[in-house]
Amino acid sequence: MTRTLRVAAISPDIRLGEVAANVARIADALTRAGSDGAQLIVVPELATSGYVFHDAAEAAAAAVTREDPLWRELSATLPEGTVAVVGYAERDGTAVYNTAAVLTRDARIGDYRKAHLWGGEAALFTPGERAGEVYDTPIGRLAVAICYDNEFPEVPRRLALAGADILALPVNWPLVPRPDGERAPEVIQAMAAARSSRLATVIADRRGSERGVAWTGGTSVIDEDGWPAAEQAGAETASATLSLRPAGDKSLPPHNDLFADRRPDLYS
Amino acid sequence: MTRTLRVAAISPDIRLGEVAANVARIADALTRAGSDGAQLIVVPELATSGYVFHDAAEAAAAAVTREDPLWRELSATLPEGTVAVVGYAERDGTAVYNTAAVLTRDARIGDYRKAHLWGGEAALFTPGERAGEVYDTPIGRLAVAICYDNEFPEVPRRLALAGADILALPVNWPLVPRPDGERAPEVIQAMAAARSSRLATVIADRRGSERGVAWTGGTSVIDEDGWPAAEQAGAETASATLSLRPAGDKSLPPHNDLFADRRPDLYS
Repeated sequence: MTRTLRVAAISPDIRLGEVAANVARIADALTRAGSDGAQLIVVPELATSGYVFHDAAEAAAAAVTREDPLWRELSATLPEGTVAVVGYAERDGTAVYNTAAVLTRDARIGDYRKAHLWGGEAALFTPGERAGEVYDTPIGRLAVAICYDNEFPEVPRRLALAGADILALPVNWPLVPRPDGERAPEVIQAMAAARSSRLATVIADRRGSERGVAWTGGTSVIDEDGWPAAEQAGAETASATLSLRPAGDKSLPPHNDLFADRRPDLYS
Repeated sequence: MTRTLRVAAISPDIRLGEVAANVARIADALTRAGSDGAQLIVVPELATSGYVFHDAAEAAAAAVTREDPLWRELSATLPEGTVAVVGYAERDGTAVYNTAAVLTRDARIGDYRKAHLWGGEAALFTPGERAGEVYDTPIGRLAVAICYDNEFPEVPRRLALAGADILALPVNWPLVPRPDGERAPEVIQAMAAARSSRLATVIADRRGSERGVAWTGGTSVIDEDGWPAAEQAGAETASATLSLRPAGDKSLPPHNDLFADRRPDLYS
């Protein structure tokens, strides 16, 4: 049966390196989204730290562990049953990862480490060893990928084939040239991926700029047919109530099925 | 080095079952596109036969072999060095395929048989055993896929990884519901696939309607960055002069590469 899910992508005002202040602003935004009934809340990539680091030392200085007290502060903002996905710079021993935490009020469900590093990130972060991940959560099977990950069509496809109900996509999309009147190309790619695999996608992007890098402001909610259900256009929150068919239902009546019609033996 | 390629997608007035008349109209449109300097010309799926067959007998009656004299008529319209991709219903013994011929003035380069059958096509056609194909042609390595094939992200990705310089995509896209102001979803999917793999795509669709099926009229040229270089909007021809980087160049300076950044070991 089709069910509904209330989702929100939030874009708090993030400042480079100001971890405590960023956490406070994220907590405030999570509280407001939760009050608005959001069952899934997505926060941008590297939201606790900012993005445009000069070097590895600066990134490491803004990185936190999974045990950091900030996680209790953020979890405490969430209503029972709500899931949040929060991008952060993760310190693990001497390694630093570009990670997204999957949180509820009572549990830390997982931490996904970005596998496809963009731009100068390879000098700052260790790449993860999973191309997106799917977690069992109170709202269903939740896929998580980060930014550049989703520009590899293999990633959302893989996550949908693994039974994801919905994809949370924290990003930091720098503004790139595009023709007048067009959406950001990364949004178009997410729309296409959503439609190809019937995988609704909740995208939390930055807004404004940081150290001269202007952000696209692509915060949006894409429905399972690939159409924008909410586009932020510079505001802090994009929220929508999505209709979701069961993850296993990829049927296109009367004759077709997005997954059963695949011919994987021919794709090598 | 970047090179330019003049391409045209043409949408002649096709009538169901009127093979000789359709061939005459295709020949006329090929002649005009060739005179306009097109080096690659793409004609819709099943252009010789039409699409909305009632049953297999009707499809078989409109099917032709690779040896049919119509191919000489069409090849003769092409200037030296120009390549045409023409959708047709192919009869091979008792089997009927949904095929695209790759033609020059002097040679028949190949015939690609659609692998992913849409709607009621499975009752009419035998599926092909390649998910798109790449051919060496006078204009370079030309990928060919047909309609629903390209809605499987694996297909354009596979063709680009196989070294395609450009993709020819004959289609018959029935009009489907979409939000006001949006492009056809299949065009969005083609734009995303083009950008993900830097694979310019030339799409020839039907226009008008056939037996009550209205066509999207998605005839268009997508450049290698995923942006429309020409959109037909109901006219007969979409043509553009594309800039193409070498197929092997997927670099995103200064740090990235669309293909080298892939992590295929993580995609299973």
